[in-house]
Formats: sequence, structure tokens, C-alpha cells
Amino acid sequence: MNQLVVQKYGGTSVGSIERIKKVAARIARMRKSGLDIVVVVSAMGGETDKLLDMARQINPDPKRREVDLLLSSGERVSSALLSMALDNIGCPSVSMTGRQIGLITDSSHTRARIKEIDTERAKRVLKKKHVIVVAGFQGINEHGDVTTLGRGGSDTSAVALAVALKAERCEIYTDVDGVYTADPNVVPDARKMDRVSYDEMLEMASLGAQVLQFRCVEFCRKYHMPLIVKSSLLDESTGTLICEEDSSMEQAVVSGVMSDKNQAKITIKGVPDQPGIASKIFTGIANASLSIDMIIQNVSEEGLTDISFTLPKEDMDEAIKIVKKLGEVIKAREISADSDICKVSIVGAGMRSNSGVAAKMFEALSGENINIAMISTSEIRVSCIVDEKYAELAVRVLHDTFHVSTEQGEAELNNGAQSA
Amino acid sequence: MNQLVVQKYGGTSVGSIERIKKVAARIARMRKSGLDIVVVVSAMGGETDKLLDMARQINPDPKRREVDLLLSSGERVSSALLSMALDNIGCPSVSMTGRQIGLITDSSHTRARIKEIDTERAKRVLKKKHVIVVAGFQGINEHGDVTTLGRGGSDTSAVALAVALKAERCEIYTDVDGVYTADPNVVPDARKMDRVSYDEMLEMASLGAQVLQFRCVEFCRKYHMPLIVKSSLLDESTGTLICEEDSSMEQAVVSGVMSDKNQAKITIKGVPDQPGIASKIFTGIANASLSIDMIIQNVSEEGLTDISFTLPKEDMDEAIKIVKKLGEVIKAREISADSDICKVSIVGAGMRSNSGVAAKMFEALSGENINIAMISTSEIRVSCIVDEKYAELAVRVLHDTFHVSTEQGEAELNNGAQSA
Repeated sequence: MNQLVVQKYGGTSVGSIERIKKVAARIARMRKSGLDIVVVVSAMGGETDKLLDMARQINPDPKRREVDLLLSSGERVSSALLSMALDNIGCPSVSMTGRQIGLITDSSHTRARIKEIDTERAKRVLKKKHVIVVAGFQGINEHGDVTTLGRGGSDTSAVALAVALKAERCEIYTDVDGVYTADPNVVPDARKMDRVSYDEMLEMASLGAQVLQFRCVEFCRKYHMPLIVKSSLLDESTGTLICEEDSSMEQAVVSGVMSDKNQAKITIKGVPDQPGIASKIFTGIANASLSIDMIIQNVSEEGLTDISFTLPKEDMDEAIKIVKKLGEVIKAREISADSDICKVSIVGAGMRSNSGVAAKMFEALSGENINIAMISTSEIRVSCIVDEKYAELAVRVLHDTFHVSTEQGEAELNNGAQSA
Repeated sequence: MNQLVVQKYGGTSVGSIERIKKVAARIARMRKSGLDIVVVVSAMGGETDKLLDMARQINPDPKRREVDLLLSSGERVSSALLSMALDNIGCPSVSMTGRQIGLITDSSHTRARIKEIDTERAKRVLKKKHVIVVAGFQGINEHGDVTTLGRGGSDTSAVALAVALKAERCEIYTDVDGVYTADPNVVPDARKMDRVSYDEMLEMASLGAQVLQFRCVEFCRKYHMPLIVKSSLLDESTGTLICEEDSSMEQAVVSGVMSDKNQAKITIKGVPDQPGIASKIFTGIANASLSIDMIIQNVSEEGLTDISFTLPKEDMDEAIKIVKKLGEVIKAREISADSDICKVSIVGAGMRSNSGVAAKMFEALSGENINIAMISTSEIRVSCIVDEKYAELAVRVLHDTFHVSTEQGEAELNNGAQSA
């Protein structure tokens, strides 16, 4: 039995006839080297947006069942075309839709969850030494209706198939070379990481690193599936390996610096400082399925207190509506909102064994006169809300402060190097 | 229980956002009038060609299983969009793929035949008073692979569903107003027919009338399903009803005049006039799955004879290859081919009860110095092979000769009216 690898190619990687041929050549090469391969493809770049745009022109609020049928067609096209390209260069292959690969989901259209994968047919095809080309992003529910898996859905398909088929690893091919210590457009000396732990990657994914979805990394961590992110455009891309933390890994104090401008802050001022008030507010928000990120409650004065919280920008208007209604009930003095904010974060597994990291971060930001509005931390992360206009500056300063570009963060921190 | 109507909208009818909305408005209007409606849609105009073109750029000879998956996506898109458009104007609807509507076919990819239709789910949805929007042209085989029904496949889907669901009638919406007595681009006073019999329509379909496929009409005749062809672009289109011949129908001697330039003629000269020679030739052709239209064998001279036959232009080169090989065996003196020919035909149920129609046709053609190379007839049709350059002239002359534009052909023929 050969080693099995699941590979996923994103929309850019299969965005044109030429690129589909290039992807086919890469797969055929790997197949020749003795691997069994299951490929998962996204829709050709731009197709999903084109389809969504048509849908919205026809119906501003289309039924989600029909949206799923509509969008799923994009991945079917690219899987058929890639299979043809493989056949054309003598690499036998079979395309499979979500249904054919046995991907069964619940019925939450446009954001379905995988319930099980029936791998029987896939295993039969692999035995025949055929490459399987799977239409990503889609499955079917118990009624036989097409469902889609939401944002990053093709990554989810790939990872779930890798686990179900007991693959050696899952490779995500995209238009970037791997996971970077910071956005290279913002930080010129940002460095591609060779390895990063699941925990760090989870933090980065939830902080706005676009390269991988949280859900996909979470799934890999749960099932100990090694995940590689690499470029389909560069032949020599070594990518980034996301795997278990191990002692041989160089534990940088700070592995990455991220910023996320898709944040808004709502502040409720002059709330009676009584038990049950915060609960009322956040139950109301949760009932609308809005997810809140940070919360702070100021020290109370004269029996009144201020509560602030952040959430994704697109949910701001709905949250304000809810809070205004609640504000009347709880007698809040004032409700304000601010969408010109940004969350800047540092992530690193090495923080666990290093103290003073947060303090150093605050010092670096204050050295640039960047005011910190809110703070939240986890075991391996520190995030600050700052004015949106400082987003890039803050990332550069922090990247520099923690020497993220040199893989020497840990040593230098202990030596007391201070750069900001 | 309401009356059920199956409607099919072609690629032009759903070719843009605006047209999809227009089709939705028409369906909603009919729904309000108390009909149950099942709609079958083609891919948006041009989509299928675009997909096929991509496929050929990737693989000149793509596997037919993958072609089917590729092409079937077009109808899925248009069915989802039309369903959204119906919902948007308050007409509840459900899209269904070939699989969901229960359309089971054999495994002849790209030209599958329907084996059965499981109407259970469709009936359940119709009971809820929802319009069903079916992705045409596609089904699944016993392995659960997507198949397509070949040319005119969406018409076939519609007709088969109409029969399976016991609909009152099947309506085919297209970009023309109905079936015409001749191509209006060639004959300015060609007339749209209000009714035409299955038999006549079958002859016309096999003679190059583009509006309906032979297979679709044949199916309707077999199951006595009334078929209406009308325009989706004109609100006042009354269309053409294709149904059983009945005594109340005005039986024009000639209902329609057609020409088909997609013909080629192959002639084998100097063949020994012995039993078994023709059989050898036509068995060879049939084994290559080429279908022959007309055959003539000239009167033999000196123990030698000439055999000519016609077939579609695209099959000419292959047929020549086969005939040349056979020619050596049967010692033919010469083999020649001619693709500059045209088949001109008149069709009419009234021919059954009128003699002299063929003679009148030959006379009219000869009156214009148009030479007739071959002739074939059925009970309700006469076809002549003529030089391709005379195609339009021949059609105009015959349309005029038989007074097809006036619905008075029969009476005038009996009165001896002669116009050519």
C-alpha cells in the first residue's frame, strides 16, 4: 500500500487553463514518485463571487438551499477539468462530487458541518491506482440536498478526507509560499516559517491570518493530521508544516505578529453596576448569533459602570440595534460605536515559558505613542485594540521588537535586548 | 388536484438576469391562475459552449464521464437562479437536480437514455404547492454518476417528466414563436402553424427543423402527450400545438417546406451488379455507427452498376475511408464524394389522401431548372437532393407552389391551381 496524501488546490491555483495544466503536471509527478493522491479543488478563482453576484441581482436574500446548489457548481467544473487534464498527460483519474466522495453533512445550508464520510467508493478507486479529484466545499445532507461548508470549505473537505482516509498528511496549495511571521506587504522582512504548532496556528487563524481557517487547523489538531501550506505557483516552495509542538522545535517567544482591521467596538456608558446587567446584554447579543471577541468593564464610579466589547465589523449595525433596545431596559446613559479600530496581536508558543512578554509589547507600542484601548491574552497570545490608523506601524514595531525575522526571539529576549 | 403543466425554458430564455426574472414572472402568473407547474431549464445561453471550449483546451478527447459532470453544472446554475427569482416574487419554489427529480439513465455518458423516473419526491413537493425548477439535460446512472442526455436533452427531460407526472401538456419555450411552414429567413411569407400532427413534426424534425429534436417528438407521440412550442420573449405568443392528427384539423397537403444543407453524397461507380455487394457496403458503414439517409442504385449496364448514398456532412470523411477500403474488395471503378448538396423536402399529412404531389414538386423544381439528383419519399413526405446553391430558391418555389402560406393548399391543389 502506497502512502496517501490529500492535496487541496485553491481558486488561484486552478484559476486558468494554464494553471490547471500546471497543477496536473505536479500531481502526475508526485503520483510517479509512488504516492496515492486525493486532490480537492476549489472553484476557479472569481467564479464563486460571480455566481453570488448573479444571485444577489436576482434576489437580495436568496434561500440558502438554492445558494448551495448554485455555488457547488463551481467546484464541479474545476474537478472535471482537472481530471481531464490529468487523463491528458497519462495520469488516470476520476472526478468525484461531494456526494460521490461520501461527504455527509447536517442541513445548515451555506455553513454545513460534516457528520460523516463514507469512504467506501474512494477506497475502491484508490485501489485501482486512480487519482481522485474531489469537488471541494460541498456535501449532501440526509435528504440528498447539496450543502456547502462555508468559508474555507474546500480546506475543510481536504482535512476531513485526509483524516477519514488515514492519509500521511494534508497539503494545502495556495498562492502564498506558506505562513509568514507577519504580512509581507506590511513588514518587508517578514519571514516564512518552516514549522508552526497547531496551537500557534489556531491563534493566528483566529486573528486574521488569511492563509488557513480556524476550523481546518482545529480539525487537524484534533486528529493529529500534519498540515502543509505551500504555493502551487512556485515549483520550489517548501511551505510551512503545521504539526504538534515538539521539543525539537525552536520555540520562538513570538512566532508571528498579526493585525485585524475587521473589528468594531461598542461602548455602553453609565450602566447601573448591579449583578445581572452584563448577563442581560451578552445574552441578548448571543441570541442573535453574533459572536463577541473582547469585553472590558471599567471600574465603577458612583454606582455606574461602562462596558465595551468588540465584534466583527459586519455585525456592528445589528449589535447596536440590540444594545439600544437593551439600553432602554437597563437605563444606560449613552451608547457609542467605533469601527476605526484594529486588533494587533503577537502569538508564540514560547510565551508559556517566558514572562514579561505582554509588558514588552505594551512598552513597544507606547514608545510609538500608540494608545491601547483594550487588551486580551491567552497562554500563547497577547492582543491589543488600537486606533486603526496605527495598524501597520504597530505590526512593524512589534515584529522588530521581538526579532521575529531572525528566529532568535527567545535568546534575545532573555538577553534583555530592547529595540523599541 | 390542479392541472399540471411541465414547461421547459431554453438557454436564450434564461440567458441573462433580466430574462430569468421575466421567466419567473410568467411562471408566477400561470401559478396564480391555478396550475401546478414543473419547470425544466437549460443552461444560460452560451454556457455549455464555454465549458466545452475549456474542456477541449485541456484535453482534445476528454473522458465522457467528466464531460457530463462538467456540462451538468450549467443547468444547476440556471435552476438555482430561477428558483431564487421565483421566491423573490412570492412564488414558492424548489430547485431539483437530475438526481433529485429521480431521472435515472443508462451509462452512455453524453448521450444517455432515460431508464426510469422516480417521481416520489416531485409528487411530495407538488402537494405542497411549490413550483419545481428542474435542472434539465441531466440524470444519474446506477453508479450515481452524472449523465447527460445529448442534444436537445432538456427537451427530453421535460417531455419525460410530463409523461411520468401525467401532466396535461408539455410547453417548450424558446426564442421562436412556434413551428413555421418554412424558415422565415428564406421565405418571407412563411406562416407560423397553430397545430401540426406528431407525424408531420417528426418528419420536419428529422429534416432539419431546429425547433424540436426528433426524439422529443417521438416520445410525445408514443405517450400521447400534447406538446406546445412557443416564445418566452413574446408575451402574446400562442405557439404551435403538436398533437394527434384529428379530423377537425385542416389537412394541408403540404404543411411545411424544409431544406437541410448538412448533407453529403458518396457515389461508388462501376460496382459488379451481383447480390451481396450493397449489403457489404452498407454493413461496413453501419458497423462504424454512421447513419445513412438516402440510397439509390442505378440501372445496371454491362454487369456494372453505380451506388450513391447520402449522410450528414460531418460523417463524410469517415465514410469515404470505409468505402475506399471496401472499394478494393468489391472492385469498384471509382469513388467520388460531393458535399455541395442539399435536401429539400415537403411534408404534409394531407399527402395521404392526395395523389400527384410528388409530380407537382418535380415539375416546380424543373420549372426553375433545378436538377434533382436523388429522391426519397414517405407516406407524408417527399425529399429531393439538389445542388446546394439552389437551396433557398427551391424552398421558396415549393412554398409558393403549394400555397403553404395560405392554409389553402388542399383546396387549390384539387382545383388544379399551378403556380410554378
